Amino acid sequence: MMKTWQPEDFDIRIGQLAKGKKNTITDVPGVRVGHMTLKEGTARTGITAILPHDGNLFQEKVLATSHVINGFGKTIGLVQVNELGQIETPILLTNTLSVGTVADGLVQYMLKQNEDIGRTTGTVNPVVGECNDGYLNDIRGLHIKQEHVWQAIANADTDFAEGAVGAGTGMSNFHLKGGIGSSSRVIQMADQNYTVGVLVLANYGLLPDLQVKGVPVGQRIERLMEAGKNEASGTGTVAEERGSIIIVVATDAPVNERQLQRICKRAVIGITRMGSFIGNGSGDIVIGFSTAFRIPHYAEEPVLPWQYFHENGITTAFRAAAEATEEAVLKALLNGEKTEGRDGHTRSSLRDWLIAYPELLQP
Amino acid sequence: MMKTWQPEDFDIRIGQLAKGKKNTITDVPGVRVGHMTLKEGTARTGITAILPHDGNLFQEKVLATSHVINGFGKTIGLVQVNELGQIETPILLTNTLSVGTVADGLVQYMLKQNEDIGRTTGTVNPVVGECNDGYLNDIRGLHIKQEHVWQAIANADTDFAEGAVGAGTGMSNFHLKGGIGSSSRVIQMADQNYTVGVLVLANYGLLPDLQVKGVPVGQRIERLMEAGKNEASGTGTVAEERGSIIIVVATDAPVNERQLQRICKRAVIGITRMGSFIGNGSGDIVIGFSTAFRIPHYAEEPVLPWQYFHENGITTAFRAAAEATEEAVLKALLNGEKTEGRDGHTRSSLRDWLIAYPELLQP
Amino acid sequence: MMKTWQPEDFDIRIGQLAKGKKNTITDVPGVRVGHMTLKEGTARTGITAILPHDGNLFQEKVLATSHVINGFGKTIGLVQVNELGQIETPILLTNTLSVGTVADGLVQYMLKQNEDIGRTTGTVNPVVGECNDGYLNDIRGLHIKQEHVWQAIANADTDFAEGAVGAGTGMSNFHLKGGIGSSSRVIQMADQNYTVGVLVLANYGLLPDLQVKGVPVGQRIERLMEAGKNEASGTGTVAEERGSIIIVVATDAPVNERQLQRICKRAVIGITRMGSFIGNGSGDIVIGFSTAFRIPHYAEEPVLPWQYFHENGITTAFRAAAEATEEAVLKALLNGEKTEGRDGHTRSSLRDWLIAYPELLQP
Amino acid sequence: MMKTWQPEDFDIRIGQLAKGKKNTITDVPGVRVGHMTLKEGTARTGITAILPHDGNLFQEKVLATSHVINGFGKTIGLVQVNELGQIETPILLTNTLSVGTVADGLVQYMLKQNEDIGRTTGTVNPVVGECNDGYLNDIRGLHIKQEHVWQAIANADTDFAEGAVGAGTGMSNFHLKGGIGSSSRVIQMADQNYTVGVLVLANYGLLPDLQVKGVPVGQRIERLMEAGKNEASGTGTVAEERGSIIIVVATDAPVNERQLQRICKRAVIGITRMGSFIGNGSGDIVIGFSTAFRIPHYAEEPVLPWQYFHENGITTAFRAAAEATEEAVLKALLNGEKTEGRDGHTRSSLRDWLIAYPELLQP
Repeated sequence: MMKTWQPEDFDIRIGQLAKGKKNTITDVPGVRVGHMTLKEGTARTGITAILPHDGNLFQEKVLATSHVINGFGKTIGLVQVNELGQIETPILLTNTLSVGTVADGLVQYMLKQNEDIGRTTGTVNPVVGECNDGYLNDIRGLHIKQEHVWQAIANADTDFAEGAVGAGTGMSNFHLKGGIGSSSRVIQMADQNYTVGVLVLANYGLLPDLQVKGVPVGQRIERLMEAGKNEASGTGTVAEERGSIIIVVATDAPVNERQLQRICKRAVIGITRMGSFIGNGSGDIVIGFSTAFRIPHYAEEPVLPWQYFHENGITTAFRAAAEATEEAVLKALLNGEKTEGRDGHTRSSLRDWLIAYPELLQP
Repeated sequence: MMKTWQPEDFDIRIGQLAKGKKNTITDVPGVRVGHMTLKEGTARTGITAILPHDGNLFQEKVLATSHVINGFGKTIGLVQVNELGQIETPILLTNTLSVGTVADGLVQYMLKQNEDIGRTTGTVNPVVGECNDGYLNDIRGLHIKQEHVWQAIANADTDFAEGAVGAGTGMSNFHLKGGIGSSSRVIQMADQNYTVGVLVLANYGLLPDLQVKGVPVGQRIERLMEAGKNEASGTGTVAEERGSIIIVVATDAPVNERQLQRICKRAVIGITRMGSFIGNGSGDIVIGFSTAFRIPHYAEEPVLPWQYFHENGITTAFRAAAEATEEAVLKALLNGEKTEGRDGHTRSSLRDWLIAYPELLQP
Repeated sequence: MMKTWQPEDFDIRIGQLAKGKKNTITDVPGVRVGHMTLKEGTARTGITAILPHDGNLFQEKVLATSHVINGFGKTIGLVQVNELGQIETPILLTNTLSVGTVADGLVQYMLKQNEDIGRTTGTVNPVVGECNDGYLNDIRGLHIKQEHVWQAIANADTDFAEGAVGAGTGMSNFHLKGGIGSSSRVIQMADQNYTVGVLVLANYGLLPDLQVKGVPVGQRIERLMEAGKNEASGTGTVAEERGSIIIVVATDAPVNERQLQRICKRAVIGITRMGSFIGNGSGDIVIGFSTAFRIPHYAEEPVLPWQYFHENGITTAFRAAAEATEEAVLKALLNGEKTEGRDGHTRSSLRDWLIAYPELLQP
Repeated sequence: MMKTWQPEDFDIRIGQLAKGKKNTITDVPGVRVGHMTLKEGTARTGITAILPHDGNLFQEKVLATSHVINGFGKTIGLVQVNELGQIETPILLTNTLSVGTVADGLVQYMLKQNEDIGRTTGTVNPVVGECNDGYLNDIRGLHIKQEHVWQAIANADTDFAEGAVGAGTGMSNFHLKGGIGSSSRVIQMADQNYTVGVLVLANYGLLPDLQVKGVPVGQRIERLMEAGKNEASGTGTVAEERGSIIIVVATDAPVNERQLQRICKRAVIGITRMGSFIGNGSGDIVIGFSTAFRIPHYAEEPVLPWQYFHENGITTAFRAAAEATEEAVLKALLNGEKTEGRDGHTRSSLRDWLIAYPELLQP
């Protein structure tokens, strides 16, 4: 696998909490991520699967919740996630117009794995998030097929690539190449360490709004673009924010659904610090789960044991979610390779800009 | 088309407000409904399409909202409907496991109709509701295909069948045959008449909970079943509520999204009066729209004229939504033909019971 | 204490679940209720206090939530209750215009009890619900004073009166005398019994909408009133629903906040079955708490042990909340004594009507 | 009146949109602000009143909404504001423990102004926001009295002081002196200019988190404090965020409630950019209103004319709310005079720090 670029490669340090070992969502034990990348012809798209644990998710669900920052988005499954506080499938991310196909593929996958669904027990709630990759991807081509779902899930591992891969293949962020980014933070409660991991599908924002730790990097790049320093501006015509960001927050901390939702709500801090104004057309949605306990589909006992934080200690988890989200967006940008897509549309890479013009990061 | 049975055929009168001419959702001018019914082999399923107006819905959206009574459901599109207050596609209903396929078919339909989607403008938000017809239907067979979407939309008319048709083909309600039901009420504001129309996909409830105007019809039928009066009880084994109800509320009244949502919230009155306890496993979801104005996708003027009710007058609209929902559920039952489905599963018809045992309705 | 009338005194049986011993909210172990009744001059008002347990509520909070059925109401404290999932004061009910005074009195009570508030720890979140008793009560007189709060709390006991007492002194329900009503249901989970108790402050609805188990009692009483059978109709002029209902749901069942809120949402079933259309002007609000565990203000351990229901078993708790709410409203009516208030305004008693005209309850 | 300090006095420029003439919330035509400041003995507290227009607010309501960022707060009135989309009283801000008293005073004010309340029409919904000023103020002393409400309202003017005045008298922000701050932005729609004005009661955050345009000013001040450069650190002992911020957003733009709430949701951008992590103990609440139309209490016509933005144009209003909130918080800090309060507790002024150490703002 290719090197994953880190903020430290550019002397950037986000926040104050310690990172997990890999600095990805898979620092939360049991979590795995898999990509299916479709980059042929005019297709620049794919699927990214996040698996909360290695077992049968339908039989052993994880506690979950979601939070809508701005609802201009087509993510499915959230109604039931919030009613029941559970996720019972892998979480899949893809392009907007393929949500139906991916949901269908995920249902087929779950039916294959669970012969009781639709026969002796109820149905299954697929969770699929999306952003619009239509600037680079021939999105009207509907290139994603049901069987791609199986590939993404089969590829799931604790090591995974960031940037222009999987669902991130065709995504743009601040008019630069965006896509998949991930980061993690470790929090300490009494003698115990817990991890908060974040994975983003980053596809939002206007170039002049991009900030890195308060430094107006986006405006500087825009001036360089206007001066002809790069052939791939792609900004002139897109004055409106039509992007989105899906933020998946995972933790092994013992929280209940209310607390997990409070943690998820802090993801907004990360995206606004990178410069977002949460534009009208941006579907900014957070999906969270905790692996601390598993909820059996068939209960053997009517009452389940549980534990959760006393609320007094939760602020550190808030900070962790904010820092990891900010860094995940930054990593999506740093790992986003320059990409040419449909009709000659091109997005340049923030990494390339920072390597060529280190002064962009000067305060 | 077959006769649609009305409550009055059994001397039942729901509520006090006047009905629209057809006593269906299509009494709201411009609204049409189309079915695609799949009843072959082990398939007992289908699609029902509700079209808010005759024009291009993406180009001329309708004001809309939704309300979740109980979120054990997989309906898609609601996040964006509530954020933007708009619906921009037909509303499709189907079985739970086919939501992805139907969403995909609907996206294809919208792409065909609108060449700008995904190219020069953003994407499209398909709205698809569902219930679980797995008791009668071989739901794991995934019999619904994308092209069925086109058929349902093509069949849309102001006249349409109720009962075991379209998405209602395989649905059960109070362990009797359920499915599609519709009703309407007329409300008067000053010198103006407005219509509130409701269409339900009814698939919820336990037989002993069924009431008709407070009369415990369900318990009486259960006793008849136990006495061997009918071969199709189907109740013994299903102690749990695994059903759902999707309620579509349409009106031509000038309301804003907040007011429309308040109206939609009153649908719960109709379903609880028919006997529902809003069980854990029931996805009870209301989708509402008003045809009073159309919202252009591309704005020619930055500010749109609008009108809406002074809040003081809204209570009659609440009552209309409650009465029409109660009656729509009753019509789903009265028009649900006895149906045999997969593995010999059978649901009997409330109408048959009431004809055979008129005393069931005695107070 | 005067006899509390029960539905069974009129051969009415609500629902199918077993009742608790007292058939009140205090069947939930530890819960107590106290009234302060103000019935002098033109004042027909008061305060009712619900205490979740006998200890210091600020130091040992109870898990709590709330649900707004219709938000035309001034209840305070709900923002923090829902954010933190906790109640840390007695729950007080009073008339609309006295919410500020009662909140102030409650703050003073809490400050007296807890010297750390506002000094070495944060502040306190008073919870006060209200209905509008202005038809009978000289509400503009602002007769409630801060010290009345202490009286209501001091009177708290497991035995308490229902009907026209405490906050219910001046309340009207379906244009009859309303006020305080309470009921409980026992649910069984494995070998364990739990109680769901409900207390209502009932002050909603139009007379012709009143139903008892589907029987149109309200319309029948209206006809008797029109025939001059009673001097206290009070209905002619009040065509609009300006009432409200506060529903307090208590349980000792091990639930989390999400589950408790789902239980609270079923209270609507009880009020709609009694005939409510949830009118525009009605502030219908549910406040719920569980006494299963106590949450310490100062945590000794960062992680608290907890337990809660597997979701599969929750439907019985839904049914319990619905049945107990329906019966609590009925008990508020059956125990509401005929009351004369300001300006000769009078509300008659449903109990008086039923005793004088037993045929009112005939199906 | 004393000079109001502006960011430009320190060469700081927040955002890119044009400001209104006064750079306060009163740039929205008709809006006025009044303070009652209580600074005697151990009292460091007060009331701030925001009046949406000059008329009788109960008779002519304004369209309104609210949004809870973090609900650890005791603000009252929001349930009804969100249900009805209206505000019908001045908006009052004060300290946490005085919310009841101020609500009571506001009810008395409204009763005096409107003889129909509680007699021939319904009741009134007071709106009161709060933060906890207990670090400087003897909050347990309950120094605010009902009559202070009248003073605050009587003082309302288009010119008003910022910083340690009114409800801001005893508030702390990032462990520095906080309080009242205000700012405005002008947005252009077609040929029309509209104003978005913001007023904050700022009382949140930890010193090391304070940023000004990405510059870690708070950490630098903390180092100066540790080096003994100022006698008033006050930070050592308060490791937890116990503050809050109330954000009032006013506009004369034609929006509906859904749109106004979307605008209010962008206030979070302003507070996170100043460094907030939205701590557990912080009640961060946004209240918004539009003066574009007035809603009569008694409707002469059942249907009201209205207008609102096509959604495509709303992003500029989002940006305006974000920029004005960020600047309002900064102005609260720049205008907060060094204040000594109860028990020798002192908060220093950011302005004093910036004047003494201009290098604090160096990137």
